[in-house]
Amino acid sequence: MPTVKAYAAPSATGELISTTIERRDVGPHDVLIDIKFAGICHSDIHTVRGDWGPQQYPLAPGHEIAGIVSEVGSDVTRHKVGDRVGVGCMVNSCGECANCDAGEEQYCLKGNTGTYGAMDRDGTITQGGYSSHVVVTENFVVNIPDALELDVAAPLLCAGITTFSPLHHWGAGPGKNVAVVGLGGLGHMAVKIAHAMGATVTVLSQSLKKQEDGLRLGADHYYATSDQNTFTDLAGSFDLIINTVSAVIDINAFLQLLKLDGALVSVGAPAEPLPVQAFSLIGARRTFAGSSIGGIKETQEMLDFCAEHGIGAEIEVIPASKINDAYERVLASDVRYRFVIDTATL
Amino acid sequence: MPTVKAYAAPSATGELISTTIERRDVGPHDVLIDIKFAGICHSDIHTVRGDWGPQQYPLAPGHEIAGIVSEVGSDVTRHKVGDRVGVGCMVNSCGECANCDAGEEQYCLKGNTGTYGAMDRDGTITQGGYSSHVVVTENFVVNIPDALELDVAAPLLCAGITTFSPLHHWGAGPGKNVAVVGLGGLGHMAVKIAHAMGATVTVLSQSLKKQEDGLRLGADHYYATSDQNTFTDLAGSFDLIINTVSAVIDINAFLQLLKLDGALVSVGAPAEPLPVQAFSLIGARRTFAGSSIGGIKETQEMLDFCAEHGIGAEIEVIPASKINDAYERVLASDVRYRFVIDTATL
Repeated sequence: MPTVKAYAAPSATGELISTTIERRDVGPHDVLIDIKFAGICHSDIHTVRGDWGPQQYPLAPGHEIAGIVSEVGSDVTRHKVGDRVGVGCMVNSCGECANCDAGEEQYCLKGNTGTYGAMDRDGTITQGGYSSHVVVTENFVVNIPDALELDVAAPLLCAGITTFSPLHHWGAGPGKNVAVVGLGGLGHMAVKIAHAMGATVTVLSQSLKKQEDGLRLGADHYYATSDQNTFTDLAGSFDLIINTVSAVIDINAFLQLLKLDGALVSVGAPAEPLPVQAFSLIGARRTFAGSSIGGIKETQEMLDFCAEHGIGAEIEVIPASKINDAYERVLASDVRYRFVIDTATL
Repeated sequence: MPTVKAYAAPSATGELISTTIERRDVGPHDVLIDIKFAGICHSDIHTVRGDWGPQQYPLAPGHEIAGIVSEVGSDVTRHKVGDRVGVGCMVNSCGECANCDAGEEQYCLKGNTGTYGAMDRDGTITQGGYSSHVVVTENFVVNIPDALELDVAAPLLCAGITTFSPLHHWGAGPGKNVAVVGLGGLGHMAVKIAHAMGATVTVLSQSLKKQEDGLRLGADHYYATSDQNTFTDLAGSFDLIINTVSAVIDINAFLQLLKLDGALVSVGAPAEPLPVQAFSLIGARRTFAGSSIGGIKETQEMLDFCAEHGIGAEIEVIPASKINDAYERVLASDVRYRFVIDTATL
């Protein structure tokens, strides 16, 4: 049972500290990964602070992991020592249900195993990527193509796949008008990916503060949602709206921006319900849907797509000692667009 | 300007009375229809009583119209005298927008022209089917196949197409589990049509009162939603749920009944919003959507489908003198499953 370096929260209220955690021995189907970079996702903060339910501590978060394979189990066939690999939001699933069979492990009917703070199949609690090493069953480890640097690839494992999956599923591409609500960690990836898919991309952000960035990242248009004219000007415009905002939005106003058969897909979940007027949907056979990360096969497709199109996350690399500061800055939306921890500094 | 017999509301609060209304002269593209039967739709009651906004009176409702062509305009090519025809919820649209071009006139971007209580293209207010005759532009008149009796065909023009369209659009068919919420005028048509499409059909009704009917109409299963076990027993079961209930339902409980990529489609619109928890959608990439009637081409397809499968509405034919009683019974859900006015009694 190897003991490895990590940065972990000692409690729901304490700051994260340098510590050690235990990883399981490398089993026949396991891969040991020497973690190089780990992204900081907003959900890391919610989870360690207990916003989404009680946790066991110490808890090392992190589900945007990029590293190098340093050991493989005896039966491993998908990876070898030296491979550049990634791990995202889940490290296991039942492997037997209809959804796992369909390659949609994220929707495993028995619940997938989260990368941190989840009950693993062996009864232990999983620990995430703010750590020097992690042991993961080979089927939940994806390959990072050579064309992608590991630091900008790390956030693709959550922010990338969470936006790629709905864009892909709902057919973003040439001739499609796609809007992205919110230009944060998820939103900036949605803009890059939708643009690379060939769609016409519009950012709908609270203000025009990040307009220059948005256009540089690939958006064709940029509108402020604080300006009510936005909603009249763009009524009935979009085939697809990806909502990356986890706060409650005026859902009916946004639904009215969809054309016939358009879909608004939420990838963030506010705690409060969204009051949907049925007529907002009925008036143009509109869809309000939700989407969660992506399956392992699709995550590999996303990485290959990003490599082919030269897409990485926009990042600010930080040493581990800055994690707590970074949390405060994430909460203040003061990051463009993802913090990535250099795990050599743990 | 022919004067014709009708039953109309003199005001938002008065009972419907026998009267006469004026129809326009038959223009080059118009068809004069000798109305034989007109269905009573719940929305007739809402509209004449002003529940959905102020109206001009007298107002003759009715948008489930079946009759015989008795005159055609000089340029009419789609219909001839003697044809058995129907008219549904709309009698015109702009004919030029993207949605009209796509044969989805119900979603006309300039708004379709409702069969009654709407501003017609010539500036007059449309009058509906509780009448001896109606003049309609030929493109909004569909053919009723010989295999369908006119009385049981009338309700197909609203209740039939409103349920056929989403069943068709969302792919109800063999191997699909379809649930129908509510067994009223719309619900009973949804059951018949979904069954004929080859789907496995489940009725979700408040109680088991109509269970025998539901199974006879083609449902494979019947559950009471007043029993909380229904929601645990059927969790993750359905590909498609057609919600025909216009009251507020526990939308998140119903969404949990959908499997991966399942859709809940509302065809009725309560005045109050439905508080949707984003996680109800995100957890299995579920869709909450809405659908309104169907296009003219699809309405013809629906009638042909119903003729082929021997599907008519379950009706109670009434004389015009019973319209006001029928309204009270509709409001009390005391009809199995549609009142149809014999217009010979006007």
